[in-house]
Amino acid sequence: MIERLAIIGVGLIGGSLARALREAGAVGQVVGCGRGLANLQRARELGVVDLITQDPAESVTGADMVFVSVPLGAMRGVFEAIRDRLEPAAVVTDGGSVKGSVVADALGVFGGVPPCLVPGHPIAGTEHSGVEASLADLYRGRRVILTPLPETDADALARVTAMWETCGAEVTCMSVAHHDEVLAATSHLPHMLAFGLVDALARMRENDEIFRYAAGGFRDFTRIASSNPVMWRDICLANREALSAMLARFGIEMTDLAESIRRADGERLLAIFERAKAARDRYVDASRID
Amino acid sequence: MIERLAIIGVGLIGGSLARALREAGAVGQVVGCGRGLANLQRARELGVVDLITQDPAESVTGADMVFVSVPLGAMRGVFEAIRDRLEPAAVVTDGGSVKGSVVADALGVFGGVPPCLVPGHPIAGTEHSGVEASLADLYRGRRVILTPLPETDADALARVTAMWETCGAEVTCMSVAHHDEVLAATSHLPHMLAFGLVDALARMRENDEIFRYAAGGFRDFTRIASSNPVMWRDICLANREALSAMLARFGIEMTDLAESIRRADGERLLAIFERAKAARDRYVDASRID
Ligand SMILES: NC(=O)c1ccc[n+]([C@@H]2O[C@H](COP(=O)([O-])OP(=O)(O)OC[C@H]3O[C@@H](n4cnc5c(N)ncnc54)[C@H](OP(=O)(O)O)[C@@H]3O)[C@@H](O)[C@H]2O)c1
Ligand SMILES: NC(=O)c1ccc[n+]([C@@H]2O[C@H](COP(=O)([O-])OP(=O)(O)OC[C@H]3O[C@@H](n4cnc5c(N)ncnc54)[C@H](OP(=O)(O)O)[C@@H]3O)[C@@H](O)[C@H]2O)c1
Repeated sequence: MIERLAIIGVGLIGGSLARALREAGAVGQVVGCGRGLANLQRARELGVVDLITQDPAESVTGADMVFVSVPLGAMRGVFEAIRDRLEPAAVVTDGGSVKGSVVADALGVFGGVPPCLVPGHPIAGTEHSGVEASLADLYRGRRVILTPLPETDADALARVTAMWETCGAEVTCMSVAHHDEVLAATSHLPHMLAFGLVDALARMRENDEIFRYAAGGFRDFTRIASSNPVMWRDICLANREALSAMLARFGIEMTDLAESIRRADGERLLAIFERAKAARDRYVDASRID
Repeated sequence: MIERLAIIGVGLIGGSLARALREAGAVGQVVGCGRGLANLQRARELGVVDLITQDPAESVTGADMVFVSVPLGAMRGVFEAIRDRLEPAAVVTDGGSVKGSVVADALGVFGGVPPCLVPGHPIAGTEHSGVEASLADLYRGRRVILTPLPETDADALARVTAMWETCGAEVTCMSVAHHDEVLAATSHLPHMLAFGLVDALARMRENDEIFRYAAGGFRDFTRIASSNPVMWRDICLANREALSAMLARFGIEMTDLAESIRRADGERLLAIFERAKAARDRYVDASRID
């Protein structure tokens, strides 16, 4: 049971955590913190949070659990603001999509990784933003990756694990570097392709006409290009190295594919498509964790 | 009203047309033709077709409307088989995803574009194949592109237009070359990216683990990589030129994006993502044709 939860950044990710914990009756009071007053007021109206404040330092007063769910570029500033105001027994965790940068920010601000910090990342989301988009069951049946460090307090890790399990999620632990590589492959690279494709088409002369003849597959394929641009700029900057490596790997694959098309090498094309279809069908079967 | 409809290739596209016309009471008899007997028998069991045959020439006997919905690589063989057996009043149309190759196949077989041929392409589909996957409402609210040629008989065009409208589709006409360029952008390129991405990940060492941490966005993004490999090999070969041009255009976009990430150019990344999000949101609003 969490007595007082501080959510810094009451958007899709933070709002959904608050909703899930409330629905489970696993939290006493929720304090919401953000920059804009309108979003915070809406969060209170919706019953997602009880109290609101625009001051991160104030939000952590009396909180036994602090969840930081702002864009990655804002993490360091939040750490600075709360550093001297955390309760001695408080656990701090976050929902940032890259873990290396969050750990580096913590190092910079706290001068070492604080034992109370449990870096985390729920593998769930939608292309929508803000508290309006938050859902009580966003994390149900989904995975949450935690990347504890040698310094991390075992009790803090256990409390964060229990919190996510209460939301219906399955928790896995892995190293910071491994997390950032895996996510570069399965999330960050696909987002780059979707943004890049839509932008390339939008820059074509007859782009309105082009989009008019896009079918349902296109809508699904490009859904993630409707995601929050600021959040994605921050992810790119925070995971530059792993993402660059994945982009290079993908570039080699596409050069091969383009060459096969130019050479009219049907056999090679068929082999690529069959391998991809088999992997995707296998993934869809395997990715159900119910 | 169609008296007797021949569907050559009773899969997702052909089966869905038959179902839609039956449901509308707009067709007398439907003859299904394919290579495999099991699929044809299933089509008859499901009530999608009345009669079945493995001989294309036989299937067109007595048919006033012939719909060819086989993979593009099989189109020429079908044209050869039916050439001398078409009824004088028959209209022939197809559902192939590329129109230049279908017209070239017709030219090669008939020695000129036959006036009864109306090349077409329904902009609808799923990643599934075969008659089991066919749906009566696949074309409802979707677009169908027809690419009539100067030789095309006006009455044939009107009959094919009316057929698709009966299925709830909106019919547009454009040139063969324009169709193939637009579809290279909105359909063929996205499929290459999805196949290429999944194949690149599948070839990584820890690919099982990687797929395990893919979220819902990945599932949507890669859905089209579960499409029929033979059909897509044929599309690549049939639309080589336009697709190669689009792949090159996309390559330039991705080089720019990768460079911006390597340079940590947040401003440029934000501009790309904002432009893409705006275009995608605009497209989603505009693409409803209800
Ligand atoms: N969306 C996804 O699919 C997803 C999935 C997993 C993880 N994540 C991660 O979760 C985090 C939040 O993403 P989200 O999708 O929830 O974004 P969101 O819906 O835009 O919410 C972010 C919230 O943070 C607040 N905020 C922004 N800058 C702030 C600052 N400097 N100080 C305090 N609050 C600030 C925003 O409100 P104000 O603008 O009013 O301050 C907003 O309510 C990000 O780190 C992201 O990488 C996202
Ligand atoms: N799937 C889509 O999203 C989509 C969308 C728009 C247009 N299209 C186009 O529609 C056409 C059909 O695609 P589909 O998705 O319906 O594929 P499908 O479900 O695999 O159906 C194709 C059918 O054609 C039959 N066939 C294959 N080769 C043949 C041959 N040589 N002679 C006679 N029949 C043959 C197959 O049965 P047997 O193997 O038993 O012969 C199968 O039932 C393709 O040209 C494709 O480009 C597809």
